[in-house]
Amino acid sequence: MKKLLIIGIGAGNPEYVTIQAVNALNQVDVFFVMDKGPAKGKLVALRKEIIERYVKDRTYRVVEATSPERRVGEPDYVRTVEDLNRDKQDIFERLIADELRDGECGAFLVWGDPSLYDSTMRIVAAIAQSGRHVFEYEVIPGISSVQALAAKHRIALNAIGRPLAITNGRAIAEGFPDHVDSAVVMLDSQNAFRQVADEDLDIYWGAYVGTPDEILIAGKLRDVMDEIERSRAEARQRHGWIMDTYLLKRRGSEDV
Amino acid sequence: MKKLLIIGIGAGNPEYVTIQAVNALNQVDVFFVMDKGPAKGKLVALRKEIIERYVKDRTYRVVEATSPERRVGEPDYVRTVEDLNRDKQDIFERLIADELRDGECGAFLVWGDPSLYDSTMRIVAAIAQSGRHVFEYEVIPGISSVQALAAKHRIALNAIGRPLAITNGRAIAEGFPDHVDSAVVMLDSQNAFRQVADEDLDIYWGAYVGTPDEILIAGKLRDVMDEIERSRAEARQRHGWIMDTYLLKRRGSEDV
Ligand SMILES: C[S@@+](CC[C@H](N)C(=O)[O-])C[C@H]1O[C@@H](n2cnc3c(N)ncnc32)[C@H](O)[C@@H]1O
Ligand SMILES: C[S@@+](CC[C@H](N)C(=O)[O-])C[C@H]1O[C@@H](n2cnc3c(N)ncnc32)[C@H](O)[C@@H]1O
Repeated sequence: MKKLLIIGIGAGNPEYVTIQAVNALNQVDVFFVMDKGPAKGKLVALRKEIIERYVKDRTYRVVEATSPERRVGEPDYVRTVEDLNRDKQDIFERLIADELRDGECGAFLVWGDPSLYDSTMRIVAAIAQSGRHVFEYEVIPGISSVQALAAKHRIALNAIGRPLAITNGRAIAEGFPDHVDSAVVMLDSQNAFRQVADEDLDIYWGAYVGTPDEILIAGKLRDVMDEIERSRAEARQRHGWIMDTYLLKRRGSEDV
Repeated sequence: MKKLLIIGIGAGNPEYVTIQAVNALNQVDVFFVMDKGPAKGKLVALRKEIIERYVKDRTYRVVEATSPERRVGEPDYVRTVEDLNRDKQDIFERLIADELRDGECGAFLVWGDPSLYDSTMRIVAAIAQSGRHVFEYEVIPGISSVQALAAKHRIALNAIGRPLAITNGRAIAEGFPDHVDSAVVMLDSQNAFRQVADEDLDIYWGAYVGTPDEILIAGKLRDVMDEIERSRAEARQRHGWIMDTYLLKRRGSEDV
């Protein structure tokens, strides 16, 4: 039997790795490393740093595969992600068939937590369901960028007894969600917070959270949004890429 | 200067503790342990297990304080939490003043992640703002029950490109939130999933997730809700308390 581990490695700080993940890393024979885009170099390096730091007295192989990229600029976002996932699935299947021997354990190291805006579980489940490969698999949770952001700003995500939305740039651009006072926004490349600047909101913004390049800005949305936009443009220019997330909270929602 | 750490210890499995948390635990002079209710014994024991397992070659004190309890059966939930937090704040202030010496580091170990349905950050921030005590403080993220649940069911929280709600029993009883396909429900003591059984939903339910007593049930909500209700009543009876969480997903939402 082959075994696959989907290991959440946390979203930036190598010390976000859990003891469970360290123990899992120490069972792995083959690490599959797939990244893409302008941040590829950095993300691959961080994965290798984690492997080298935490795997003790064990030989393992690292197999790098080039990740397919999502077609950008097409109107149907979900469709482009599904196409991408199909391409990824082909690569995953090849890796499982060719690079992993019976009785061995392979691992995908997932940025942050595997349950949040990540396709690895979905793809591995599709392969398992296809019946074309026999393997068992397990998922190890990790510290997501959402939690890292909240910890760094030392702010609770939800107001007392109230729901929270975890959403994305595309969705927040259509308006602040009803029935919640707090919304975490991920995957926003367009400063979508500007679209909700008419609401009375506080913003807790963070880029490269947990890394040495971390930037944090918080305040009344209307007061700090220009500063965030400038800071984000400048940082993206300097690094060649950016990873940022923010929490929007209705002002005074704590008193509701 | 006094220092306080608010350390997320993960939601059940002692191996959910991160390396960052282990390093933080090893700076602590005084652990403040406050729990309450029927699960008190178990929760205090798990905290002590974590301290004993991960703190090496260091002396520390453990100060147990009795946590005040929320008045139940009152209509204004938020008010009762605020009252409770005020009582807790008095206790925290006393602990900081009397039990922590200048130059020492104190810690609160928070179940799961401190940013999710937990008052510790809110209370410590209020104390810091009061100006009555001088200290610095830091927050260490932890694996929340939400992520533990998703990992155990090997299921992504959000549908591709779609928002997610993290909500509670009280709120879900008023209806499945608009504009999302996925909702995680915490703090539900009333089987509130029954209130949304007319929607076409899948449920991924888990109790005592990450612990040896873990129970997982998944399926079409209407098909499994009786089984969940029975299982939960039986488990609560047997243990004297229950901690459970579930993810509701609109069926077919992956194809949206
Ligand atoms: C494809 S999603 C993956 C999320 C990841 N699974 C997690 O748990 O954080 C990528 C998005 O996560 C957010 N993100 C990831 N790491 C981050 C970090 N270190 N700082 C700020 N945002 C981050 C950004 O919003 C980015 O667009
Ligand atoms: C006051 S909230 C605290 C949440 C915590 N801060 C976290 O990050 O998970 C308590 C609720 O969390 C959920 N919960 C916590 N631990 C759990 C576990 N091990 N299994 C299932 N649900 C859990 C339950 O819904 C419970 O009612």
